[in-house]
Formats: sequence, structure tokens, C-alpha cells
Amino acid sequence: MIEFDFVTGNQFKIDEANSALAQYGIQVRKRDDIEKIEIQSTDLETIASAALALVVQKVKGKVVVEDSGLFVHALNGFPGPYSSFVFDTLGIDSILKLLDGAKTRKAEFRSSVAYGEEGKLVAVFSSVTEGNIVTQPRGSNGFGFDPIFAPIWTQKTFAEMEMKEKSVYSHRSKAFSKLALWYLNEGSKKAKIKS
Amino acid sequence: MIEFDFVTGNQFKIDEANSALAQYGIQVRKRDDIEKIEIQSTDLETIASAALALVVQKVKGKVVVEDSGLFVHALNGFPGPYSSFVFDTLGIDSILKLLDGAKTRKAEFRSSVAYGEEGKLVAVFSSVTEGNIVTQPRGSNGFGFDPIFAPIWTQKTFAEMEMKEKSVYSHRSKAFSKLALWYLNEGSKKAKIKS
Repeated sequence: MIEFDFVTGNQFKIDEANSALAQYGIQVRKRDDIEKIEIQSTDLETIASAALALVVQKVKGKVVVEDSGLFVHALNGFPGPYSSFVFDTLGIDSILKLLDGAKTRKAEFRSSVAYGEEGKLVAVFSSVTEGNIVTQPRGSNGFGFDPIFAPIWTQKTFAEMEMKEKSVYSHRSKAFSKLALWYLNEGSKKAKIKS
Repeated sequence: MIEFDFVTGNQFKIDEANSALAQYGIQVRKRDDIEKIEIQSTDLETIASAALALVVQKVKGKVVVEDSGLFVHALNGFPGPYSSFVFDTLGIDSILKLLDGAKTRKAEFRSSVAYGEEGKLVAVFSSVTEGNIVTQPRGSNGFGFDPIFAPIWTQKTFAEMEMKEKSVYSHRSKAFSKLALWYLNEGSKKAKIKS
């Protein structure tokens, strides 16, 4: 089994990454003992890359960080990169309140996964899941704004899905799958040549 | 006249700093040619210190950066350090919408000014101005959330004040005044001893 360190304090992210990576023979190991510095930016790839560039200097072996956010169209991309702060301060209902009377409830969850090894950022993988903000929170799985986001093609919110089902739709799962496919085709060759 | 470089793209901040500093024989010079990296944190001193630590390596002489934010009590400190992003995405009216029905309209503007020289962070000065979120935006001076914030002791919003009046109340002016008093008493001695 190939193993990457994943610098995060969020167990949901660990579980979701492992759910997505299992079929590729890869798993992540939670590293919540390393400080992760996130910069302010509206671009998740920039945030993930900058965070990775710092943590990769403190970790031996292969390491990933992930940054994600909910971008609501009628709110010009709010809460975006600050979804965690907004969840902590305003909570879920605030998004519904702000969307009251909006012309569209379209939104997207975005995820960027940065991968590095040997002290350097190597690659960044991003994915987007489009969907809608529902009118009332539903479900108790997942975390953050999962109870108010339903991907297109389904009526279920992320919080109403079991991990396996969420993996089909999720921005994070898709970004980690991109990482896995790249790693098995390009990244591991690179690693083998080096070793 | 003593001169500090002030790394910001915001002319209002330059004008306000100079309004506060003039009486101390100090002025700031706008430096919008240097990238300022802001980290994500709920603590403005942490953000200003980290930003200063990077820019001070790119500037000869004395340099300052400032970070500020509006912390609304009933919103658990939202929008706080992300006031600029929230202003750009949601606008002023969103704060009024979120506060609709709240038990208190108390809020505070916070400012942290970090000062450095010779490649190093030297000191950080912070100030807070308490006030209330008014029910309708008023005035056209200033920037950001100035039209909805009235300091205690006055009914006027920041946006209804001329610069001289705003200087009396403003979080930013008070933080820059602290910097000036420190500099004239301690900082310049230090600089003289060094030179």
C-alpha cells in the first residue's frame, strides 16, 4: 500500500480521501502534529500550494494538503476560501438567510490538493462539483456546509449521503482521484527513477 | 520629517495614517509595488506580523503594514479579518441582513500595525474602536463598512466624518498613534544607538 501524509486536523477529510484512494492502492495518514499555514486568496490552488510548500519541508516522504470551499454564485463566490471561518462564526443558516430572494441557488464546492516530496511542491490537482443550495438543511453526515449542498443529478445533500455515495460526487474525492491517477502514471515513475 | 514605507494599495489607509501621524512629525509613503501576503487567522496581530516579516526583507529602511477588520458581536466576530473579501462579495447590506432580529448591534473595528526595520519585525501596535452597526448605511467618506459603523459617543458613522473627525475615533488612527509614541520614545533611540 502506498502511503501519503495528509496534513489536516479534519478526520472527515481523511476518511473521504481514503475512500477515494482505496481503489488505487493508496492511503493517507493523518498528520495533525504539523502547523499548516493558509494564506488569504480567492484561489484555492494558491492556498494549497503555499501551504504545501511550507509543510513539505517538515515532513519526510510524500505529503499532501487540501483546501476546499463552497462558492455560492448569487453571493459572488462567498464564503469560498473562508468557508470554515464562516461556518464557525455565522453557521449554516446564514447562507440560507443571505440567499433569501436570490435569483439562483447555484453553487459549487471546490477542492485543491497539493502534493509534494523531498522538500518540494510537485503538483496540484483541483476539482469542482456543481450543485444547488437547498432551502433547508438536511442530513447529518459530513461536515461544514454539507447539509445545504445538493450536487446536480441528485436531490440528496452531501450530508444525506454515506461516504461511498458522497465519493461519487464530491469535489474532494475527484481531486484526490486525479492525484492518484497522476501518481500511478507519472509520479511513481518519477519516484522510481529517483530511488 | 520621519518617513516610514507603508505597504498597502489602499489610499484611504495612507491618508488616515498620515492624518494620525502628522502631529508627531512622521509620515508614511505608499508602497503598492511590493506584494503583501496575508495569512488566514482570526488574530489581526498574527496577520500583520506575518505580513511584515516578509515585506521587511524587501524594503530598505523603516516599513509598516496594517491589518484591520470589523468584528460584529452577534455574528461571532464576522466578518473580522476577512472584511475586505466579505465587502467585495456580499457588500454592506449583507451585514444588515444578517443582523436582522439580532439582540445586539454592538461591533468593533480592530487594527494592528506592524513595524520593522533592517529585515526584522520590531513591534506591533493594536487598537480597538467600539461602536454599533446602524440600521441603514449613511455617508460617503471612507471605505468598506464605514457607512454602517458608528463609534460609541457619537451618532455619526465613519463614512459621515471628515478625516480629522474620523481620526479622533478610528481604530487605525489610534494604532498608528501608538506606533508614533513608541517610535519617538523607544524606537528612534534604538535607531540612533544603532546608527
